[in-house]
Amino acid sequence: MKRVNTTLISGMQEFLPPRQAKFDDFLARICEVFQKHGFMHIETPAIERMEILLAKAGGETEKQIYKVMKTAETGEEADQGLRFDHTVPLARYVVEHEGKLSFPFKAMQIGRSWRGERAQKGRFREFYQCDVDVIGRGKLDAAYDAEVIATLVQALLALELETPVVARISNRKLLMGFLRELGLIEQAQKICRIIDHAEKISYEEVRYALTELGLGNDEVKKITHFMELRGVPEEVLKGLERLKIQDEMFGEGVYELKRLTKLLEEEQLIGHIEVDLKIVRGLDYYTGTVFEFGLPEYKQVGSIGGGGRYENLAGYFSEQKFPGVGGSIGLSRLFDIILDNNLVKSQVGKPLDYAVVPISEQEVSYANKVARDLRGEGFRVTVVLTDKRLGDKLAYAARLADNAVVVGEKEARTGEHEVKRFN
Amino acid sequence: MKRVNTTLISGMQEFLPPRQAKFDDFLARICEVFQKHGFMHIETPAIERMEILLAKAGGETEKQIYKVMKTAETGEEADQGLRFDHTVPLARYVVEHEGKLSFPFKAMQIGRSWRGERAQKGRFREFYQCDVDVIGRGKLDAAYDAEVIATLVQALLALELETPVVARISNRKLLMGFLRELGLIEQAQKICRIIDHAEKISYEEVRYALTELGLGNDEVKKITHFMELRGVPEEVLKGLERLKIQDEMFGEGVYELKRLTKLLEEEQLIGHIEVDLKIVRGLDYYTGTVFEFGLPEYKQVGSIGGGGRYENLAGYFSEQKFPGVGGSIGLSRLFDIILDNNLVKSQVGKPLDYAVVPISEQEVSYANKVARDLRGEGFRVTVVLTDKRLGDKLAYAARLADNAVVVGEKEARTGEHEVKRFN
Repeated sequence: MKRVNTTLISGMQEFLPPRQAKFDDFLARICEVFQKHGFMHIETPAIERMEILLAKAGGETEKQIYKVMKTAETGEEADQGLRFDHTVPLARYVVEHEGKLSFPFKAMQIGRSWRGERAQKGRFREFYQCDVDVIGRGKLDAAYDAEVIATLVQALLALELETPVVARISNRKLLMGFLRELGLIEQAQKICRIIDHAEKISYEEVRYALTELGLGNDEVKKITHFMELRGVPEEVLKGLERLKIQDEMFGEGVYELKRLTKLLEEEQLIGHIEVDLKIVRGLDYYTGTVFEFGLPEYKQVGSIGGGGRYENLAGYFSEQKFPGVGGSIGLSRLFDIILDNNLVKSQVGKPLDYAVVPISEQEVSYANKVARDLRGEGFRVTVVLTDKRLGDKLAYAARLADNAVVVGEKEARTGEHEVKRFN
Repeated sequence: MKRVNTTLISGMQEFLPPRQAKFDDFLARICEVFQKHGFMHIETPAIERMEILLAKAGGETEKQIYKVMKTAETGEEADQGLRFDHTVPLARYVVEHEGKLSFPFKAMQIGRSWRGERAQKGRFREFYQCDVDVIGRGKLDAAYDAEVIATLVQALLALELETPVVARISNRKLLMGFLRELGLIEQAQKICRIIDHAEKISYEEVRYALTELGLGNDEVKKITHFMELRGVPEEVLKGLERLKIQDEMFGEGVYELKRLTKLLEEEQLIGHIEVDLKIVRGLDYYTGTVFEFGLPEYKQVGSIGGGGRYENLAGYFSEQKFPGVGGSIGLSRLFDIILDNNLVKSQVGKPLDYAVVPISEQEVSYANKVARDLRGEGFRVTVVLTDKRLGDKLAYAARLADNAVVVGEKEARTGEHEVKRFN
């Protein structure tokens, strides 16, 4: 026998049954909220053509794609890879099945993706994401932005965590319009990147990075002031008015943000919403509303999901325009934080309702009958078939089940038995 | 825009939402039966170390493993691959977590595996399997064989297919004991392989293949007679008695088969059970009970799952002995057969219960309120937020939902609305 390494590969998650049951409970709660909000489940293959994966991926992501290949192939021939998110497969799916879908198409995807990231705490190489997207054909009403955010926040609330959940919201038209007004549209991409990273670096570093771009003191001050607008929607909207920006795109951004926050208020979610103009969410993809979920009491863990509005889902694959809005919950990461900090309110009980314990082999048939009847009533039941001593069988039963039924000669004969409840 | 290939990769499955809903319904039914029988869900990573995968894989399977590697790596460096079944990961899991599991450990695994097979009808490169296994430490009672088979048959029956499902059962000790009695133990492996393939070739080819091994006419006749023993348990057991075999292992096989079929009879599954001594299930792995599921009315599609008893789950990874019994349903394949032959009795309805249709933007808030209330009652609800004409909105609603609520100025004002039921 060759000694092989059976430990978990770094960057993967794997649970013992009780923890798996809790994870499954989370998945079921998220799935239920998504379905109640009218999203339809789709599941794409884990493997996509590299040309599909590379069409959108750029920079870091491209380097993180796992290529897959059959044993006979060599690395150079590999033209397939594992999906690194749900958005690229969704784009392919929508283009491929366009004629058979009803638009706006409300899709939910719950499953694993893979990224060959450098292994570190909270970063997984195989991770669960729970996505919702609404895809329009040609155009898509802005009210769907509110629906996607409401659905995702409701799903997070359904987990009953013992810590608040907050969605920080912005609209990229605000920042873009603001930079246009300042005459900084050429540096916009670089400024976006600095703002996107602002929470990971110090205030001085942000100022320094902006100065490095050749911006004057006054411009840097204006940008850092803008970045710091944050709080309840009403106040941030007032702050935006005070900027007296004339730019048309900025105006659109204000209008969209106002409508979005009003709709979220009607959904009674306003306590879970904050407007934060630092939220940018990457660089090119999003074009309007952007949002990010976090646990304010655990800031150091960073984002647990997010999303936004995009002009065109499948610009890489199709000339047809598919605007959309979508977002996701990073469940593997969130679950890791929850376990580390003991944030689970709802408890999952023992895996089984009943363990039926025949005292000897003679009572197995009757024990099976008892189990059958209990299953017929909807219970989860096991029959303990080991030849151990009764005490050992009961100890095993107590670990796994809420109740035990011990079946001896008398019970098998009379057809009567008692239920013993474990505490 | 570069034109890329958005079609599904050959050997993969991907569904439109209504078909996905049916697939999900199947998964849920199988999962429910597994859980009611006391199996606990575990989920291992899709990616395993190649040394783990290669420890058990041999022959064809080894060539079919998908290697995975990060973009920077070349083929030679790839030391990880995608799992090709659930058994190898289970073996690693049990060895790795042994101290924290309760034995007998009843595990269920439902998920995808990958094999780079030659693409052909009914063969998938990415496929769902639904597995149950009972793993003992040191030893495991034979009554668990009946439990695994009963659980899997019940799961198949829960799908309510419009065609019978049959489990064909044998015990490898019968064939091995029989061959030992004939003095053919040295050729046993080769004979097993011929019997394993007997259903795919003609009777003459079987005889020819046996003769090629150097067997005499009389031996060939005895073996083909043995192979043809098939039918209800009682009759096959009588047929086995008539062979008058003295071999001890053969006797054990008869005893185990008798006990197994008696337990399955008590589970009222005897109508779905057939003893068939041609069932071998591969070569080395299984050591006792073996079984295979099929649809007798669709013989040409072959097996839709199977399994058996094994002496030692993790002989490759551990010196500890873990005997087990397990089996699986090949759901991707089964689902493909079901779709091709229209075998689904149970129907999945439309994805949504209600579509709420605001006539104009003014009624969106009230429409959201109606949706919120309906969701509170547990319904799946969408709000139709397109700016199309009412007729188009209702056509969209009718495609997706069982009922519509149209919300106009009057409804928003009075707070009263009617439900329109689609047929």
